[in-house]
Amino acid sequence: MDDKLNNLKALVNEVHDINSAMALLEWDQQTNMPRGGSDDRANQLGTLSRISHVKFTSDETGELLEDLEDYGNSLEPASNDACLLKALKRLYAKKTKVPAKMVAEFADATARAQHVWEDAKEESDFKKFRPHLEKIVELRQAYAELFKPYDHIYDPLLDDYETGLKTADVQQIFSELRPQQEELIRAIAEKQKIDNSFLFNNGYDEKKQWDFGVDIISRFGYDWKHGRQDKAIHPFTTSFGLGDVRITTRIFKDNLMSGLFSSMHEAGHAIYEQGISKDLRRTPLAEGASLAMHESQSRLWENLVGRSKDFWICFYPKLKELFPSQLGNVGLDAFYRGINKVEPSLIRVESDEATYNLHIMLRLELEISLLEGKIEVKDLPEIWKNEMDSLLGVSSSNDCDGVLQDVHWSCGVFGYFPTYALGNLVSAQLWEKINDDIPGLSGQIRNADFSGLLGWLRENIHQHGAKFEPQELIKRVVGSKIDPKPYMRYLNGKFGEIYGL
Amino acid sequence: MDDKLNNLKALVNEVHDINSAMALLEWDQQTNMPRGGSDDRANQLGTLSRISHVKFTSDETGELLEDLEDYGNSLEPASNDACLLKALKRLYAKKTKVPAKMVAEFADATARAQHVWEDAKEESDFKKFRPHLEKIVELRQAYAELFKPYDHIYDPLLDDYETGLKTADVQQIFSELRPQQEELIRAIAEKQKIDNSFLFNNGYDEKKQWDFGVDIISRFGYDWKHGRQDKAIHPFTTSFGLGDVRITTRIFKDNLMSGLFSSMHEAGHAIYEQGISKDLRRTPLAEGASLAMHESQSRLWENLVGRSKDFWICFYPKLKELFPSQLGNVGLDAFYRGINKVEPSLIRVESDEATYNLHIMLRLELEISLLEGKIEVKDLPEIWKNEMDSLLGVSSSNDCDGVLQDVHWSCGVFGYFPTYALGNLVSAQLWEKINDDIPGLSGQIRNADFSGLLGWLRENIHQHGAKFEPQELIKRVVGSKIDPKPYMRYLNGKFGEIYGL
Repeated sequence: MDDKLNNLKALVNEVHDINSAMALLEWDQQTNMPRGGSDDRANQLGTLSRISHVKFTSDETGELLEDLEDYGNSLEPASNDACLLKALKRLYAKKTKVPAKMVAEFADATARAQHVWEDAKEESDFKKFRPHLEKIVELRQAYAELFKPYDHIYDPLLDDYETGLKTADVQQIFSELRPQQEELIRAIAEKQKIDNSFLFNNGYDEKKQWDFGVDIISRFGYDWKHGRQDKAIHPFTTSFGLGDVRITTRIFKDNLMSGLFSSMHEAGHAIYEQGISKDLRRTPLAEGASLAMHESQSRLWENLVGRSKDFWICFYPKLKELFPSQLGNVGLDAFYRGINKVEPSLIRVESDEATYNLHIMLRLELEISLLEGKIEVKDLPEIWKNEMDSLLGVSSSNDCDGVLQDVHWSCGVFGYFPTYALGNLVSAQLWEKINDDIPGLSGQIRNADFSGLLGWLRENIHQHGAKFEPQELIKRVVGSKIDPKPYMRYLNGKFGEIYGL
Repeated sequence: MDDKLNNLKALVNEVHDINSAMALLEWDQQTNMPRGGSDDRANQLGTLSRISHVKFTSDETGELLEDLEDYGNSLEPASNDACLLKALKRLYAKKTKVPAKMVAEFADATARAQHVWEDAKEESDFKKFRPHLEKIVELRQAYAELFKPYDHIYDPLLDDYETGLKTADVQQIFSELRPQQEELIRAIAEKQKIDNSFLFNNGYDEKKQWDFGVDIISRFGYDWKHGRQDKAIHPFTTSFGLGDVRITTRIFKDNLMSGLFSSMHEAGHAIYEQGISKDLRRTPLAEGASLAMHESQSRLWENLVGRSKDFWICFYPKLKELFPSQLGNVGLDAFYRGINKVEPSLIRVESDEATYNLHIMLRLELEISLLEGKIEVKDLPEIWKNEMDSLLGVSSSNDCDGVLQDVHWSCGVFGYFPTYALGNLVSAQLWEKINDDIPGLSGQIRNADFSGLLGWLRENIHQHGAKFEPQELIKRVVGSKIDPKPYMRYLNGKFGEIYGL
């Protein structure tokens, strides 16, 4: 059995290497690549994705998995090898359903769509992007249909990012969450508006912002020997093996929050991957348990830590020193209220904690309707505007602030958005548990000491990588499945205090 | 036959895509990768190189080539398809001799050696690098031996970079060249030394240097829509398809020449690749005809243009404006003499045109002796010092200025160095022909008009890519094979005037 396990691992290692090379091709595409490289890059991604797929879905993999089935069942269920075999079996069953031709076609179509989306966004011209999105939706429908019978056409897509979760589960969670968030937003709307204009329009030096962000995420625990930060239009985290986990951010002179919280957010993702046990390297277990788990980490550092009063008690004096002309007259309390101002707005990634999930709910509805064929791509800009208006009371005539704002669809990523909201929920579930386990946490953060928090996350979450399915991992850690209540307790507590509700 | 040709092309395209992805992995390794990514990167390069090799050397390729042999012979010999089939046949015959295991082992060993070499160079500690180099030499010997019988063990390595050329050819050319270069250097040594201290030690602003170099290479014709420039310890050019040809440079505050001439040099390489006919894309013909041809292009722009009086008549006033405190009192003639100062020195890439080739001759001798087993890696630093002393009358006690100065051996690149000297020779052969064909060239350069020169190169060299073997291409263009006489005419003319010989 040892020989067969080693053969299987060697095969899986190779596939992982190819996938890592693809991740670099994609990172480079978003950070460095000149526009003229677009066609070549599409070819390269198409070829590598096909090779990776063919290799993993080969008969050889299937036979090894079959031969190792009994052996896997005989192992301690939480052991690395047992978890690897279980994950591979699941992945193999899923991926063998997909023809290699479709994999390459999808990689090619999304690589080509990338720069078109960038241009279209820049020019706020949805028409330019439309044929690409139509092609991508069509390919995603064809993909989902490979998994018939299903409860819902959206299920196979969701499952790619959140193993085991069903569309109905998400709809159930969202239907519990939505009225409570709407009620909170309504209550806040009746209160006096917070003035946080000092965060904008004041020419915040980009280099100083960059350096301040770098200092913070270094203190969080981001390891620069195994990573780096670059600029990208849409911030993201990626890894090429556990030894090289990179983040990107974007910095605006007239928006102090954007770059800073982007860096914290992406560092949260990266710290997760940097903490995965090296024993899992070069396997599918060498990643986060799911996107919601991933997002729980990024949002925890960005919001639970980075938007807390405790954090700024320590860091606001430093920030003030950097920007005396902009912040000299702004007290800690005004700053804290400023960065937590609740106001319905157009852009998801810039939106506050109270309204954020509503953006996600809109995207989920649209994705489901597109996949079901109930709406057409050509009508998206109009529908987007109307829905934003009814959901949040805001709308824009620019596609760049509307339907074109996010990179996801140009990457062919459908089923991903809900995990952002779920990640918020999980971050609050973890936060309650962490505060139970580390009673002095608040004081530690006030002293810029994140070692206790990082240690807890390393121990309970990070090291396990994708050994456990997400629902199982959450249950192991907090004792229940994904639950909106802790998040609502957190929101109501925080904003109740800020707005005096 | 059309079907078979298309199948072969599809296969070759895939291999090219994989090789392009590897080129990106390597580019990233030298520009961006954090140290911690080294092991993962070695795995990725090992895996991709093995896959590329296995795919190209498959029976399928062999059968297609065999089936297409008659068809290829029936085509016009200079047609794209005929040239492609001929090149593939040659490559296939060569690569099928190499076991996939050796390919992966070599890729892995060289990827691992990279950062060790960087560290060793930084610490000037050859011992650190020694075991890696020993392994690499061993692997290169084993590689060369696969091609027995050969005239010389160095032949198969040389042939990888300069198709068809033999070690004996190079030795013949060098033996004609060496005494003439030595005589020139001796004659110059008897003349008064040129003072070019103003080029060093004066705090040349890095950003200004960078921008000036960017301006120059843009005027040469480097296309930024299909390329970019980054910093790297050892400047190089690489491409990921014809649409994305990147260069790197290095800038020193205390050396005005280094960054500037590096940029011109690498741009010369890149302009070559950017000019290859798009009809050849995604095939092995989508690259330079050989390394000597490549180097003829880089040296032509760097030296024949960039170190000429004509060029600086136009550009020196601009440079003076940028650096008034350093160059305010330096006249054009003093500057021109300064950048062309001949003085035996330790570092190849910083050396002048009259001594450069002697550095290459030393490396050729050492590589041959290592391959033949006549000297051992452990003795290299000592031999290097002694040889430099007898060849150029200079020597250093630091390994970083000696045996560790170049990146090539850490990349496993043996057989490459001679092409640098050959490129110099070819650049002068081309230059004589170009000046015959464009009588007004000198005046054009004085007016910063490089379009005539670029057009000539595009027409006669660039567009053809690797369609023709290098000796054939040179013959097509200048009517003779590689010949040292034009280069010596050029050196004697230029330095005769500068030094009043």
